[in-house]
Amino acid sequence: MADNRRYRKKSLLAAARIGRIVGEHKVIVDPDILAGYAKDESEAEPVLPDVAIRAEDIDDVVATLKLAERFEVPVTPRGGGTGKSGGAVAIRGGIVISLAKLCRIEEINKADLLAVVQPGVVTGELQAEVEREGLFFPPDPASLETCVIGGNVAENAGGPRAFKYGVTREYVFGLDAVLMGGGRISTGRRTVKGVAGYDLTALMVGSEGTLAVFTGVTLRLLRLPKCVATLLARFDDEVSAGRAVARIVEAGLVPRVLELLDSACVETARKEGKMPIPEDTGALLLIEVDGEEGSVELEVERMAAALDEGGARDVLAAQDEAQRSRLWAARRELSELIKKRAAFKLSEDVAVPRSRLAEALQRYRKAGAEHGVEVASYGHAGDGNLHVNVLWNDPDLVVKARETVDRIVRISLDLGGTITGEHGVGHLKKKYLMWEQSREVIGLQRKLKRTFDPKGLLNPGKIF
Amino acid sequence: MADNRRYRKKSLLAAARIGRIVGEHKVIVDPDILAGYAKDESEAEPVLPDVAIRAEDIDDVVATLKLAERFEVPVTPRGGGTGKSGGAVAIRGGIVISLAKLCRIEEINKADLLAVVQPGVVTGELQAEVEREGLFFPPDPASLETCVIGGNVAENAGGPRAFKYGVTREYVFGLDAVLMGGGRISTGRRTVKGVAGYDLTALMVGSEGTLAVFTGVTLRLLRLPKCVATLLARFDDEVSAGRAVARIVEAGLVPRVLELLDSACVETARKEGKMPIPEDTGALLLIEVDGEEGSVELEVERMAAALDEGGARDVLAAQDEAQRSRLWAARRELSELIKKRAAFKLSEDVAVPRSRLAEALQRYRKAGAEHGVEVASYGHAGDGNLHVNVLWNDPDLVVKARETVDRIVRISLDLGGTITGEHGVGHLKKKYLMWEQSREVIGLQRKLKRTFDPKGLLNPGKIF
Repeated sequence: MADNRRYRKKSLLAAARIGRIVGEHKVIVDPDILAGYAKDESEAEPVLPDVAIRAEDIDDVVATLKLAERFEVPVTPRGGGTGKSGGAVAIRGGIVISLAKLCRIEEINKADLLAVVQPGVVTGELQAEVEREGLFFPPDPASLETCVIGGNVAENAGGPRAFKYGVTREYVFGLDAVLMGGGRISTGRRTVKGVAGYDLTALMVGSEGTLAVFTGVTLRLLRLPKCVATLLARFDDEVSAGRAVARIVEAGLVPRVLELLDSACVETARKEGKMPIPEDTGALLLIEVDGEEGSVELEVERMAAALDEGGARDVLAAQDEAQRSRLWAARRELSELIKKRAAFKLSEDVAVPRSRLAEALQRYRKAGAEHGVEVASYGHAGDGNLHVNVLWNDPDLVVKARETVDRIVRISLDLGGTITGEHGVGHLKKKYLMWEQSREVIGLQRKLKRTFDPKGLLNPGKIF
Repeated sequence: MADNRRYRKKSLLAAARIGRIVGEHKVIVDPDILAGYAKDESEAEPVLPDVAIRAEDIDDVVATLKLAERFEVPVTPRGGGTGKSGGAVAIRGGIVISLAKLCRIEEINKADLLAVVQPGVVTGELQAEVEREGLFFPPDPASLETCVIGGNVAENAGGPRAFKYGVTREYVFGLDAVLMGGGRISTGRRTVKGVAGYDLTALMVGSEGTLAVFTGVTLRLLRLPKCVATLLARFDDEVSAGRAVARIVEAGLVPRVLELLDSACVETARKEGKMPIPEDTGALLLIEVDGEEGSVELEVERMAAALDEGGARDVLAAQDEAQRSRLWAARRELSELIKKRAAFKLSEDVAVPRSRLAEALQRYRKAGAEHGVEVASYGHAGDGNLHVNVLWNDPDLVVKARETVDRIVRISLDLGGTITGEHGVGHLKKKYLMWEQSREVIGLQRKLKRTFDPKGLLNPGKIF
């Protein structure tokens, strides 16, 4: 674990002052406990912060950001620590502020279809809570049992259901936030529509903790769909699976989930997973359709026809909840199973225009083969957003593996895509940002960052 | 017409230089022609600009913004001139740059469900064009036959279909824009998902021409729904209409359109309009449901049940296109008919949380009665977004009318609403912005504005 000591002295001075205001028990300096604040769920190298502040209310956040600015100490905000791009790693050292204890659901409003929550509310818990009231919060990042709403907002998190329902930004009406220095702002509104002034809310969604620390989020909710149908379609190869995706879109069908597993992922799931998958399967599409009872049945029929035309070998439909989770098993286990497939792994989160999906998969695989590493891809086919895993066993191949990742990013951009579909730039993808965006666009973002945080102390070293 | 001569000399100097670069024929200084660039469709007083530049390509925009900055002349961008808050009125004089001739549809991509267009493309023409290909661009501001995409993006335009499909921001993947000074940027992407860097696209959507001049827009499209059903429900009063709206939302129904006419509007439509409406009608709801054939029928049945439970007197369903336009007539004519109802009119565009709709309508009317003016409201009930018209005949009542408008805005904020649902702040609602937003939030927006436009020359005097 790296240990950046540059701000150690100033951090401890600031922490002592913060402790006097917020209470000593919220200030962590014990390295053993600090180790729990050193990493996220990405491949970024952990870094031990100098101090962690466990905020319990808004005043704690205000005090921390006020004194950190006065002492010129970097502050890295942290939610569930489940990020995939190193965004919550305090790469410069300094203070980590944890929002995990700001975890109250303040309001669930059925009539206005909205919720007001603190940033530390666990996404899955919010979903369960609103579903009990017949409501629905669609964004479903893979980490939903441990990730928190504040982190989801900071990263503009996605998930399988984004194909129909969109990503987190579509569900944020407004934000309460604290700026570096301790100033408080409230942006957005409680109404569905509203165009008063600049959309500061949208600017802060996906800003990866570099502009402000969120203390409250007003979320848009939907009514819970009454009925969900889950289908699993088998294909000979990714080309026919890609064709089926195109056919589904052409037919005007909007399943809530449209997930793809390529041949390497299918093989992994077959060998290591719990669900039996026939040997001649070259690709899988996992599909979910939701809505009112009668219309779901109609859509399932149309979906089956589109899959058939697209060249599916067969389509399994879940008849009950047990079958549904069995169909999901192959997809859910994948992230863990893929790790077992090889000694080493690097994963990317690229997106391409939907029509280029099959081409992208083939070019990624070819790039891997040329570099002597394996490439296994799965993800949100409907959105063209793929999690591409580079796998290898020989430690000497690490340079080749990194080159392959670079190639995968280049190919995605070449196809009109982006360097990150839903994981964010964070610490790990900084070098790729300038492959996608011009100097002018990056320069403008740097200027915006300085507008919010003139001293560059809030989550420094991220994005740019 | 006002005539602000402060920048006259500098504008003419700049125009001469611009003309040498872009061609003299694109530079308008003739006051008779300039009069066509003096106003929009709001109640804002027209102002004659010193110069108008009719841009025909991106280089014209670059040259204009470069030289205007060098000569320190204000520039007001103009699309279709259909704005409702004075945003396109050059209140400080200077140069108006018209984007109306940048009106090419560059690409309609069926597989990736996107279009790339220039900013001067008329919204209704784009809709017709994509519909010919079985595609759908949902945003439908009332002015769609004359407004343009660039203006829609600048104002984040809405319309009746926003209830199901959201507003313009939901359909902008990316922007090409020119900054004051002539710098060019491209933001966003061609993929459905993407989180590389700050969401500059979202920041520019709804920025009312104050941050940049758009030269290209990448738009998200949907598949055209195969089937649309139109219903008109009659109620005794707004309270029962409001109850029906709540019932529809509770039932999980998502009609694409859910429009309300209050009693004054109903009376106007009955007396002046083409559609026969029974005398005992106190409020109308116009509803459209769309989707696949079978599911639309199911949704219409459920809708009829919800309207019944909500207390509708009766529900008319259009059986064909002719009947459909007859049902729409009452709503479509309204904006014009309302003008005939009284000698003078002021209209507001407030929004409240959906659950406060009936309460808002009653309080608006009461405020009008207390000030001796009439209040007639109609609009997007599903979104809680109402166009509230203050009507009076005695010229001496103008002060009372203005006070009523102030009260209507106060009531809306009091109910948790916003000063503008879809028309923007522009020139007319500047004083209300500080009723809704804190000094900190407005200050932050001013700083962002300076980041884009340090000299404050692009559409000055708007929003703040």
